[in-house]
Parts: sequence; C-alpha cells; structure tokens
Amino acid sequence: MTGRLIGAIEAGGTKFVLAVARENGEVIAETRIATRTPDECFPEMAAFFHNAAQAHGAISAFGVASFGPIDIDPDSGDYGRFTTTPKPGWAGARFHDALGEFGAPIVVDTDVNGAALGEWAQGAGQGTRTLAYTTVGTGIGTGVLQDGHSLAGFSHFEAGHIAVARVPALDPFPGRCPFHGDCLEGLASGPAIEERWGASLSKLASPAEQVELIAGYLAQLAANLVLLHMPDRLVFGGGVMKTPGLIEALRLATERRLGGYVQAPQLDPGLERYIVAPGLGDEAGITGAVLLGKRALG
Amino acid sequence: MTGRLIGAIEAGGTKFVLAVARENGEVIAETRIATRTPDECFPEMAAFFHNAAQAHGAISAFGVASFGPIDIDPDSGDYGRFTTTPKPGWAGARFHDALGEFGAPIVVDTDVNGAALGEWAQGAGQGTRTLAYTTVGTGIGTGVLQDGHSLAGFSHFEAGHIAVARVPALDPFPGRCPFHGDCLEGLASGPAIEERWGASLSKLASPAEQVELIAGYLAQLAANLVLLHMPDRLVFGGGVMKTPGLIEALRLATERRLGGYVQAPQLDPGLERYIVAPGLGDEAGITGAVLLGKRALG
Repeated sequence: MTGRLIGAIEAGGTKFVLAVARENGEVIAETRIATRTPDECFPEMAAFFHNAAQAHGAISAFGVASFGPIDIDPDSGDYGRFTTTPKPGWAGARFHDALGEFGAPIVVDTDVNGAALGEWAQGAGQGTRTLAYTTVGTGIGTGVLQDGHSLAGFSHFEAGHIAVARVPALDPFPGRCPFHGDCLEGLASGPAIEERWGASLSKLASPAEQVELIAGYLAQLAANLVLLHMPDRLVFGGGVMKTPGLIEALRLATERRLGGYVQAPQLDPGLERYIVAPGLGDEAGITGAVLLGKRALG
Repeated sequence: MTGRLIGAIEAGGTKFVLAVARENGEVIAETRIATRTPDECFPEMAAFFHNAAQAHGAISAFGVASFGPIDIDPDSGDYGRFTTTPKPGWAGARFHDALGEFGAPIVVDTDVNGAALGEWAQGAGQGTRTLAYTTVGTGIGTGVLQDGHSLAGFSHFEAGHIAVARVPALDPFPGRCPFHGDCLEGLASGPAIEERWGASLSKLASPAEQVELIAGYLAQLAANLVLLHMPDRLVFGGGVMKTPGLIEALRLATERRLGGYVQAPQLDPGLERYIVAPGLGDEAGITGAVLLGKRALG
C-alpha cells in the first residue's frame, strides 16, 4: 500500500503543468503542455493522466489551479467551468468534461489561490492565518487565504483591475487593459511594461526610474490589500517580480503609502518580513494544485 | 418567562446608543449619551444597564458595535480594547472594564461590521451571502460579512484610507487625512466636504458637479470592494449618503469604472439593486449590536 494518488493541474495562460503526486506530496510524474484551445489541451491532459494511472495506479482525486474567470463555487452546477474569458474556446469549457471519466472528485480553484495555498502550506506564507499571494506577470491577480482556505464572494477576486492613482506627466502610457485602460494590470503587467518601454523591466539598460514607477503602482494594490483584508503577510511572485530591486522598491512605496496608519507587529519597519518573494518560486501553483486534490481525498 | 435580555451598545464618534432588548429583538429601553472620554462615558453606560436590569431583569449578554481601531479578535487577550485611536483617552480603554461587573458574555465588533450585520439580518442586505456595508460620514469605513460573520485579517478593515485616483486640476483640495492627505476619507468624508466647500453636499446651492466629484471617489471604493471581495450587494449609508442624487451618481460612476469587466447577475445594469441605501436607516448599528449580543447567548 503506497497510498492514494492525486492528479494535479496548474492551468496557466501559456502552459499547463500536469503532475501526479502521492498523498505526501511526492511528485511521481510531471509534464508541461502548451495552452491552446480546450479541444486540443483537454485530450492531451486526459492522456497524460491515463498513462500515469496505468504506470502508477488509479488517481483518487484531482486538484486544479486555473486561470480564470472560472466558477470556483463547489455548490454551483457550473463548478469548474470557465465563464466569460475572452481566451478563444475557453468560455464554457469545464475541467469536469475532461476529467470526469476518471470517476474521482475534482477540486477547482484559481491559479493565484492555488499558488497562495502552496505558499501557505510549504512556502513563504507558513505560519500566517490570513495570506495574500499576488502574481505580477502576463496578468496581475491576488488570492487571499484564511486558515488555508481561499476567500471569495460571488466569484473569485480580480485584484489586477483596481484603479490606481497615476501622474500622466510622469507616465504618459495610457495603459493597455481592454476594459479599463489604466487599471493596475493595464499599467504594471509584463505586457504593459513591454509595450511601454519595448523590453521587460530587467532588460532595461538603466531601469531605476521605471522600477520605481511600477513599484508605485503595485504598492497601491499592496496598500489596498492591507486596508481591505489585513493579511498577515503579502507574497509577491510572477515574472515581473523577478526584476532586481523591484520588491525592495515595492516595500518602500507601500510603507510610504500606508503612512504609518496601520500599526501591527506584522508590519515590521521596512516591511522586509511583510512583503516577501515566494518560497517555492515557480512551483507554488502546482504544489497548491496537489494540496487542493489532497483536500478532495477527505 | 419572558426570555433573556441583551444589552446593546453602538459606540460612535459623537454618541453612544445604548439599548436593552429581548431575544426577539424588541427594544425595551434605549438612551443616547454623548461620546466623551471613557472615564465619563463608561460609568454612565454602566448606570444605564444597572437601571435597566433593576427594572426588567438581569442582562444575559452584551453586544458592542464600536468605532475603532479596536481589537475584535475573540482569541486575543485584548479583545474589546481600543488600540491606537487618536481619540483622547480611548487608546487602551476596554469595554470589558465597564461591563465586566455584569458577569455576562460580551461580543465586540466594529460599528460598520455591526451595521452590516443589522442590514444583513433585517435590512437591505437580506438574502446575500457576501455583503459590504459602507458608511460615509465623519469617517469612511466598510464592513464585509460572509454568511453574517464579519471578515477580518489581523485587524478589522480600514477601507476609508484607500488611495484614489484624482485629477488635481478638477479638485485642488489637498485632502485632510492626517496620515495620507488625499486618501478616500481625506477627500470624500463629511468633514472633507465641509472644509472644501464650506457646507455639506446637501446644503450647496447647485451641487451637481460636487456630487459627481464625490461619487467618483466613492466609486473607486465600490469598485475595489467588487474586485477584492465580490460582494453580492453594497449598502452605502451614513450622513453624506443622504445627499440627494449621490447614490445615483455613485451607481453610474461605479458601473463606468468597472467597465463591464465583472459579469454577474448580482450586478444589474444600472446597479440599482447592487448599490443600495440602508434598509434600517440610522438603526442599522444598534440593531447589529443587539444581534451580536444575541450571538453570545448561544
């Protein structure tokens, strides 16, 4: 008896990470497939799990951490179904369609909630009760956990689209969000940075000013998270956050913006222990997906 | 046997509402006292409940909905204690000091969380799972409930202090928040409006433009609440919200700001059923305090 197996899926905008893990988290099979339409991705995904099941045994539960918008309400008849995503082919697709044949329970949450769970259980969020995990990459999103469970209202959060204060004289870029123009994602996501300056932040020759500008936008999300969720810690991950100096600039800008109003042991002077990089690096999402699947084992 | 009695306190910045109610919510005694220092307020508050107990019977539980910042974590040793408030005399004061002699359990939450609870149970928030109640008055604050229980992280929320996008050419007022200057509360609270225009919004001769400006600021909170909490409904109360036309302008500005990004049955076109006035008017807070006390009865 080697224990039950968990199928885990981290579904991102450019790639899917698929893994099979034991209950203790040990990954025994893993692959990556490119994100195309569900007609292309779903059979490939199912085939991977079929092969893994043949090699290692039946899969007892699936955990999915996916891009959205997606229905993550277990009480909904559309649980696991993509809603209004503009991503071609994905609106209406449902993970249960591809995974139902395995006859195993399926737990679905968002990619950021999954990454938050990974960080909470095994990464930089350990020991917290309320944890916010933000990714700054192709998009910007935040998952908030309380005691390891993701918070949501009628849907998952959409933190990337908050309005931010900006000074057009300093940043004439109009923003690139198709819905809001200059919302946070429209100004500070990876594509916004590339469109504005023709390169990623880390490839700019002398990026100090640009890093400062982006940090100032991200700090408004960080401050809003503090004021509207009071998390014990903020983890900031994703490709853009790998820019040297960005997290340091974000700490400074967030502290400046909070202006000493919120006093708590969690908010250490300098915020070095409050705003932190992921402990699991790029493994946070798939780790969280395994943990979501484990939950379904009961 | 007429059932147990609940002592209820709505502690506001200018007045305390004190009430004694039966388990069914019927208020059998009520008074208001001016907010001064705890040395003055607390004995007066205790005397009211002593007199009520003599007339009607022992008080079995207390519910407190109070201004803050205040510790609302039942697991904390400082539960019910004011923390860093600049209000003279209140930092360190604790409701349990004044009410402990009654030997009854005490439930403490913030004023906005209490009002949210009142609206959720008996007012405009009925039927929601996630409800946000915002007051716009001397200060600005928001309480968010899920299934009738207030959300909090390491502390209660401080929604009034979020940063807002502004156009200094249209609104040269620098804001009056001692911590942030032009945060939402610094720009759109009652005192900010009076300081900027010399009168309350409803007393301005031709207020259309001013109402529009304030609505634009409040819409940023409304949109942030949607994006970071996805509530089923937003109740907006408090003195400033009584300005004719303001809630209509707020709906328009919020819809414009969301830009059609969030699609859900809750967000009806025009937001008339999404952004609503309190159903209990100024009674939301004390109603919530009674309900908090009722919870302590078990």
